[in-house]
Amino acid sequence: MTEPTLKEIRDAADRIRLYAHKTPVLTCTNLDQQVGAQVFLKCENFQKVGAFRFRGACNTVFSLSETEAQRGVATHSSGNHAQALALAARLRGVPANIVMPSSAPQVKKAAVAGYGGQTTFCDPTLEARDTTLAKVISETGAVEVHPNNNYQVIAGAGTAALELVYEIPGLDVVIAPVGGGGLLSGTAISVTEVSRQTRVIAGEPEMADDAYRSMQAGTIIPSIKPQTIADGLLTSLGKLTFPIIQKRVEQIVTVSEDAIIEAMKFVWERVKIIIEPSAAVSVAVLWEGKIDLTGLRVGVILSGGNVDLDQLPWQSLS
Amino acid sequence: MTEPTLKEIRDAADRIRLYAHKTPVLTCTNLDQQVGAQVFLKCENFQKVGAFRFRGACNTVFSLSETEAQRGVATHSSGNHAQALALAARLRGVPANIVMPSSAPQVKKAAVAGYGGQTTFCDPTLEARDTTLAKVISETGAVEVHPNNNYQVIAGAGTAALELVYEIPGLDVVIAPVGGGGLLSGTAISVTEVSRQTRVIAGEPEMADDAYRSMQAGTIIPSIKPQTIADGLLTSLGKLTFPIIQKRVEQIVTVSEDAIIEAMKFVWERVKIIIEPSAAVSVAVLWEGKIDLTGLRVGVILSGGNVDLDQLPWQSLS
Repeated sequence: MTEPTLKEIRDAADRIRLYAHKTPVLTCTNLDQQVGAQVFLKCENFQKVGAFRFRGACNTVFSLSETEAQRGVATHSSGNHAQALALAARLRGVPANIVMPSSAPQVKKAAVAGYGGQTTFCDPTLEARDTTLAKVISETGAVEVHPNNNYQVIAGAGTAALELVYEIPGLDVVIAPVGGGGLLSGTAISVTEVSRQTRVIAGEPEMADDAYRSMQAGTIIPSIKPQTIADGLLTSLGKLTFPIIQKRVEQIVTVSEDAIIEAMKFVWERVKIIIEPSAAVSVAVLWEGKIDLTGLRVGVILSGGNVDLDQLPWQSLS
Repeated sequence: MTEPTLKEIRDAADRIRLYAHKTPVLTCTNLDQQVGAQVFLKCENFQKVGAFRFRGACNTVFSLSETEAQRGVATHSSGNHAQALALAARLRGVPANIVMPSSAPQVKKAAVAGYGGQTTFCDPTLEARDTTLAKVISETGAVEVHPNNNYQVIAGAGTAALELVYEIPGLDVVIAPVGGGGLLSGTAISVTEVSRQTRVIAGEPEMADDAYRSMQAGTIIPSIKPQTIADGLLTSLGKLTFPIIQKRVEQIVTVSEDAIIEAMKFVWERVKIIIEPSAAVSVAVLWEGKIDLTGLRVGVILSGGNVDLDQLPWQSLS
């Protein structure tokens, strides 16, 4: 079991069907003209909790045996995964323990609490997160659900691309963003298994380019304190996700911070939907000119839409 | 011919089918919980040029005889109608003459030019707009297309609600914003003719409440220099739209500027779509508490999504 099979991703899709949205695929004439391609936007910003993360969390929580589930689930995250796991656990009626740095924004603390998650705060260091999570797990017996490097999370994440390739046949390319690689590896399995002629390409911030460098080196090279506006992509690849990406992803395209912000603003202005910077990384690939997409049918996974509307990135650009 | 018939609205739908989007209807669990109703959002923010206006302009332009069309069309507008008419004319291959105050924002001038409209600038007064438009029409022989008080514009505008009531049966209420009344009157005809038990309710800014006062008085009472963030709703009702609204609209609900801004921000944050303040007026009605919507199925026409992302209204609230 080095990677989820297509059958396991299909099973995940059945498992989450009652809880997750089948998100729409949008097109935009303006965007197509800009890119010179036919672009199909898979809108995971419309997913529950505003991000694809709900698919993986939901699949994992509902894959647990009754005994496991009763002990609850646990993770450390201050982002979309925390909210996703809290909601998935609530839907199954089991506890979710979320370890979060005390420095996390109030809005994110409130969101997790709003979904019924039990939050344990820790100092904002990697060490404190790990020791606090270990302590929570030893006290509760909860099952750890890593945001990316988890078999069921990857299978769940792959259901978005599965819906996309079934709905839009004949895609030449599918682009997804890469951080910890859960979304990208799940996407890559679904796409390459269902539609063998379709290439999978990843978008990654230049400022957090561990996946790009890892692919070049043939071994995992983690990012050291990466800084990018795409705060969902700060994590580095893991032992489970890296081999899948090596095997199934054609190319990692890195994009600048300015390109991410411009892509995000373009989508807000022209497509009229809210996407977060991590999702804009995929869109930025369309303009980057590092791959020729002219005349192709291109699927883009818009990973999420959670943004602080009081702090928009282009305010600092202008 | 005091008002377009249902058949004429259906004909309009056929006429514009090749050019206009059949826009999606979105739902949002968060919104439903907030309102205590089932809410169906008709997303005209995803329409061509980002607003329902394209429907009316397109229907009008493609209703013209070949002789009329060759003389071109003309209007005065600095808003969505200008862009809509320019694009519709370009699609038919005829000239669009747009009279616009020289004080209009650069981005709106550029948008009209981008759709191939020929702009004539005038002083920013009502008199200058009227005399300049009259001059353009006498020189070109162009057909005037009023943004609201025009039979074919109303029929075109009504196609959005027609799609909504066909797609979502059993609606109890449909809410649309009211400015000049083109959208509202077209909506009211479609809704009440197709689905007789469905009530039509309008949202209007308190700061531009001519429709509310006109309904109370039983005669048109224009707004004098209204000031509202909902800049698509500054126009007053006209002789064609007012009687339709009197006959078919149950109630006009006025909403405060703060309520408009809060509704707009809620939709951006939770539904993850961009709507403009005029569209948020309809959403604000859901919260206003002036009508009891508990447990009902409520359709909401989101009229458009054209916003200056560098000047967001909640920046002045916080």
